[in-house]
Amino acid sequence: MKALQNDLILKALRGEDMKRPPVWMMRQAGRYLPDYIKLREKYDFFTRVQTPELACEITLQPVDQVGVDAAIIFSDILVIPQAMGLTVLLEENKGPLLPNVIKTEADVDALITTGVEESLGYVTKAIEMTVRELNGRVPLIGFAGAPWTILCYMVEGKGSKSFDKAKQFCFTQPALAHKLLQKITNITIDYLKAQVKAGADLVQVFDSWSSMLSPADFKEIAQPYLFQISDALKDHAPVILFPKGSWYAIPEIGRSSAAGIGIDWCITPQMARQMAGDHITIQGNFDPAKLLAPIPQIKKEVKEMIDGFGVKRYIANLGHGITPNVPVDHARAFVDAVKEYGA
Amino acid sequence: MKALQNDLILKALRGEDMKRPPVWMMRQAGRYLPDYIKLREKYDFFTRVQTPELACEITLQPVDQVGVDAAIIFSDILVIPQAMGLTVLLEENKGPLLPNVIKTEADVDALITTGVEESLGYVTKAIEMTVRELNGRVPLIGFAGAPWTILCYMVEGKGSKSFDKAKQFCFTQPALAHKLLQKITNITIDYLKAQVKAGADLVQVFDSWSSMLSPADFKEIAQPYLFQISDALKDHAPVILFPKGSWYAIPEIGRSSAAGIGIDWCITPQMARQMAGDHITIQGNFDPAKLLAPIPQIKKEVKEMIDGFGVKRYIANLGHGITPNVPVDHARAFVDAVKEYGA
Repeated sequence: MKALQNDLILKALRGEDMKRPPVWMMRQAGRYLPDYIKLREKYDFFTRVQTPELACEITLQPVDQVGVDAAIIFSDILVIPQAMGLTVLLEENKGPLLPNVIKTEADVDALITTGVEESLGYVTKAIEMTVRELNGRVPLIGFAGAPWTILCYMVEGKGSKSFDKAKQFCFTQPALAHKLLQKITNITIDYLKAQVKAGADLVQVFDSWSSMLSPADFKEIAQPYLFQISDALKDHAPVILFPKGSWYAIPEIGRSSAAGIGIDWCITPQMARQMAGDHITIQGNFDPAKLLAPIPQIKKEVKEMIDGFGVKRYIANLGHGITPNVPVDHARAFVDAVKEYGA
Repeated sequence: MKALQNDLILKALRGEDMKRPPVWMMRQAGRYLPDYIKLREKYDFFTRVQTPELACEITLQPVDQVGVDAAIIFSDILVIPQAMGLTVLLEENKGPLLPNVIKTEADVDALITTGVEESLGYVTKAIEMTVRELNGRVPLIGFAGAPWTILCYMVEGKGSKSFDKAKQFCFTQPALAHKLLQKITNITIDYLKAQVKAGADLVQVFDSWSSMLSPADFKEIAQPYLFQISDALKDHAPVILFPKGSWYAIPEIGRSSAAGIGIDWCITPQMARQMAGDHITIQGNFDPAKLLAPIPQIKKEVKEMIDGFGVKRYIANLGHGITPNVPVDHARAFVDAVKEYGA
């Protein structure tokens, strides 16, 4: 295997001095790319996820076509509920549907927590294949959903504005909720270790629904499991935690074993930097909707964003996934603006 | 008209010393109440809103049945787009639908910005009737949507996870967006003044979608219009601004002409108090989903919340509207816990 020719993101996570920050975009292998749409028209979602050749091809598209500094393996956070024995359905343009939700202790006890190297072998195969194809061009990011976010889907059974049922489950059956969260954590640690073993250079944990929780509940329900994961992975690969919207947790995450923290756009770079301290790398936080603005405005605001965060201990990214309605040249303008920084 | 027997909320907004904070709940006249459901089965949404007798009856329900310290007139923020000439449809259990969205300068120019005392006369009639029926028991809150939130619906045409179209409109046509925001602001000021004239003791401005905006965009798109409204109303009645989720704006709103600021549950009481300073009353911030927890836990957490905010310059409330799935006795437990505070 060829050594990495572009290891900017790893350097940023180690806190090395940089001339410009690395850049990638959440959901960069997604529906804004015409070549992704072509594959989407031929293969359904879980076929794309479960076929290593397809997952690999999709993962490489934004590296080739948009010029990002890191690839992220094409997959889905809901492969974990599947590996635990739950059915997950996904209709295009609709959210996921889990017909058999978790309600009782028996439901939790029935969940599978072992054998993830086999059950999710298609992910590790896709990672191996992608690392070969990348041939050292850029690092590859592995990922998983955070335990709280996975619990949300397991209990609620689908997307929700407020995840009331998931919260009610935690508030009324706290011991059972913690048992479930621990099970999800255990299998997620195995899963992320398998991804690193297969070749992922770093991993990101997506807590997409952490913003539903009050600071006290985040500390009780979400944070301990995020930290278990980063503690377990930190000697294997750098870990980026992305508790979307949970700005209040930045100081504690800054003192954790995580190498990086992802933040959304609802906080100024200056405030985030002040809260995070000097020992963690911040990733974010361009508003994905801003990619709909005219290109000169995108470029101007990207520069201001980097000025705000500073070049060191910073990874340029969006504050959430890129949306399907973004023109490809606007996505490219975002990436180019980061690459041109300081030049 | 009888003098107010319970003016706790007005005292709290003036910063007077209190033995316990006042309490009300956003959407307190709503679907968790069986008597509301009965009216809902007989009359469609806009019939309930546009018939002063029904709006009055619904407004009084939580005062009689849950014991809140303030009534809030039953209405909807989308009466303003209607008064401006747009069609607003509302199907039960679905969000609103505005079939003719704002796209062009001609669309903005065609909007009506005068005559709100006539076009929304059914609201002021409902307020007059409610004030008579309340007979001084508790104060009555009037309200309107904030200009940014109203723009969201006018441009997007319906609810959205991210209000991308509304943001794109602002990012690509900023001058036109400001023209629209100013028109909404002007009619909203007239509307709130009419509500006060009709008997509302205070008003709240709901910026339900302000959390979609980055701090910089909030300051550009949302905040100036919120402040225009509070500046224009402050000599008529106390104004509470509720920029949901925009915690970063608390310090500036704390220095504005608003008497109160509403906050959601994604910030600790201590942090909110520190950011708000001493010159504004804070309203919030119980997680509505916590009302699904067992009653003893609700009571314990309400006490902790009040401990955190302190009794002075504080109005106990939820961090967002009460949801239909909350048992009435849990809502009552929330209100009782506030009333029992310090006793």
